[in-house]
Amino acid sequence: MKNFDSNEDPHRRYNPLINEWVLVSPHRSKRPWQGQNEKIVSDALPQYDPNCYLCPGNVRANGIHNTDYKDPFVFDNDFAALKQEEIHFEANQEATFFKLQPERGISRVVCFSPNHNETLPEMSIEAIEKIVRTWQQEYIELGKIDYVNYIQIFENKGSVMGCSNPHPHGQIWGQSSLPTQVEKTQTNLKKYFDQNQRTLLHDYIQEELQKQKRIVIENNHFVALVPFWAIWPFETMLVSKRAVAKITDFSPEEAHHFAAILKQLTTKYDNLFETSFPYSSGIHQAPTDGEEHPEWHFHMHFYPPLLRSATVKKFMVGYEMLGESQRDITAEKSAAMLREQSEVHYKLR
Amino acid sequence: MKNFDSNEDPHRRYNPLINEWVLVSPHRSKRPWQGQNEKIVSDALPQYDPNCYLCPGNVRANGIHNTDYKDPFVFDNDFAALKQEEIHFEANQEATFFKLQPERGISRVVCFSPNHNETLPEMSIEAIEKIVRTWQQEYIELGKIDYVNYIQIFENKGSVMGCSNPHPHGQIWGQSSLPTQVEKTQTNLKKYFDQNQRTLLHDYIQEELQKQKRIVIENNHFVALVPFWAIWPFETMLVSKRAVAKITDFSPEEAHHFAAILKQLTTKYDNLFETSFPYSSGIHQAPTDGEEHPEWHFHMHFYPPLLRSATVKKFMVGYEMLGESQRDITAEKSAAMLREQSEVHYKLR
Ligand SMILES: O=P(O)(O)O[C@H]1O[C@H](CO)[C@@H](O)[C@H](O)[C@H]1O
Ligand SMILES: O=P(O)(O)O[C@H]1O[C@H](CO)[C@@H](O)[C@H](O)[C@H]1O
Repeated sequence: MKNFDSNEDPHRRYNPLINEWVLVSPHRSKRPWQGQNEKIVSDALPQYDPNCYLCPGNVRANGIHNTDYKDPFVFDNDFAALKQEEIHFEANQEATFFKLQPERGISRVVCFSPNHNETLPEMSIEAIEKIVRTWQQEYIELGKIDYVNYIQIFENKGSVMGCSNPHPHGQIWGQSSLPTQVEKTQTNLKKYFDQNQRTLLHDYIQEELQKQKRIVIENNHFVALVPFWAIWPFETMLVSKRAVAKITDFSPEEAHHFAAILKQLTTKYDNLFETSFPYSSGIHQAPTDGEEHPEWHFHMHFYPPLLRSATVKKFMVGYEMLGESQRDITAEKSAAMLREQSEVHYKLR
Repeated sequence: MKNFDSNEDPHRRYNPLINEWVLVSPHRSKRPWQGQNEKIVSDALPQYDPNCYLCPGNVRANGIHNTDYKDPFVFDNDFAALKQEEIHFEANQEATFFKLQPERGISRVVCFSPNHNETLPEMSIEAIEKIVRTWQQEYIELGKIDYVNYIQIFENKGSVMGCSNPHPHGQIWGQSSLPTQVEKTQTNLKKYFDQNQRTLLHDYIQEELQKQKRIVIENNHFVALVPFWAIWPFETMLVSKRAVAKITDFSPEEAHHFAAILKQLTTKYDNLFETSFPYSSGIHQAPTDGEEHPEWHFHMHFYPPLLRSATVKKFMVGYEMLGESQRDITAEKSAAMLREQSEVHYKLR
């Protein structure tokens, strides 16, 4: 009988953050692709677009003018998925099949740069540090709101990720409940911390740093790696070396190193297929529910859809929706490919 | 204070099948869409395509000729995500962060029709019945394989769902483990059955049939509804009225009614935006692990991506990936829209 080889043979890997498995089929990367191709988004965007509702000074859908901002610019989302209004609700009694609860929250947009065509990897570390400081301020400010118990900072980049405007921006949603993915993560982080008195991610990155098989970038304070249990072909996770629960716990030096690794990682992403690399990214950190959360360990997920080129993405469809997430390329292979990318952006070469 | 209105106010709904929540933002359907549009797939396909590797008599990538089939045609996937080979594996001891297990399985393709351009809603009920019988045979045949404990029958339809060939076909993967989504479902079905001695879905559809708010179609033996907790805008679930654990438990009359409701539902889907409606669909049913499964209740999920038209889909991205699934239109509204669609296919009008 043939011996198992994780570079060749189908297997499942376990994700201890959400207690789920992923199916890995390394041999399947040889499959020819005859399906849908994504559009290449033109690199040639103007620095200012008079029709962009995010550019400085322009008018938004609701008639409000953006300020003539130079630094990251924050405003309340004009089409928010959450409402700030307090609502009176009598819990229904048909609990088994028709459980429902109102959800209160606030949703903001953060323009990263006044320049319409300047994405994260193209910004200076100092400019990215200003975004990090904006995220810190928003975490503090939204966290003070009585009904806000959790703050989700995220970015959808690229039209393939549902982003309707190429102007570099992210979003922040503050809400009363812990969303599903965060609740799962918290449960598993807490179980581990209660057993070990160390955070799960602290111990995990120690082992990864020893193995050096899935590390993409490392600096004094942060690690970027392809998690052992990654789902998306080039999924990565940015983890702070120190077990800090939230972004406001960063020292100024940590904030700087976080900005630096963000620039490095997104540059490598762009260089991989020489395209403005699409992804959804977001920060998982402690809730703002007034409790102590020693189990939490700051991390940021990057979920990029591309698989083989600037136009061929991974489809998480039938089997993945009904059965289990599935990947072809191994986490080790992806990490190696990202690692070998230059830290100089391809447009500057 | 304003009273809660589920047609207006953001809320979360609970999915008892997988023990997860979904965020519903009904007011957000007014949001203008400036993002990516999907390609319209031409309706004008030939009945036979000499370049299609699924058409009768044609050659596949591995040199094998398809038979000159008239009825549903099954073959082993040439680029399977699973391998049938038995592999020797020593469980690793680094269990916490690097848990891994080989996965053995078999993956098949089912051509639904010899005609390249004949999708489910365009087929006769009798022709769809033959597909149902093929699924039954495959469930029996794959279920006999020693290492196969679960069989996932599914279809990816449309290029937006990663389908690389418009020739009507689905897939069947038999494997040794229960995939993540199925395992979650089984856990919750079992908990309910142990407490109530009736299946969860039996009790759920009784209540839905009384309320008549989310039912799309009903016949003597099946119900098609938009579940209270649906995630995708026009997600539906087909449930057998009788609590049967698996497709092989259908009476001939049930098999016929299942084929009929499949035709009706997919016709309404096509009529909604007058397009060949993309989706991933799949059957959840009892594992083939040799155990009794009185908790299982046959059902089929339809996960269609479209939101507003043939070209605007719902993006499950940043917030959804990092936080929680989110929908704009309510399940009740979607059900009403599907219900009012004709059962005559738009191409025949
Ligand atoms: O097997 P196919 O049709 O080549 O591939 C399609 O369905 C599979 C199962 O859902 C997915 O893993 C692939 O990403 C998708 O492109
Ligand atoms: O808020 P936006 O950018 O209009 O919309 C985008 O991000 C949201 C949050 O991930 C998603 O719910 C939408 O489907 C997506 O199109």
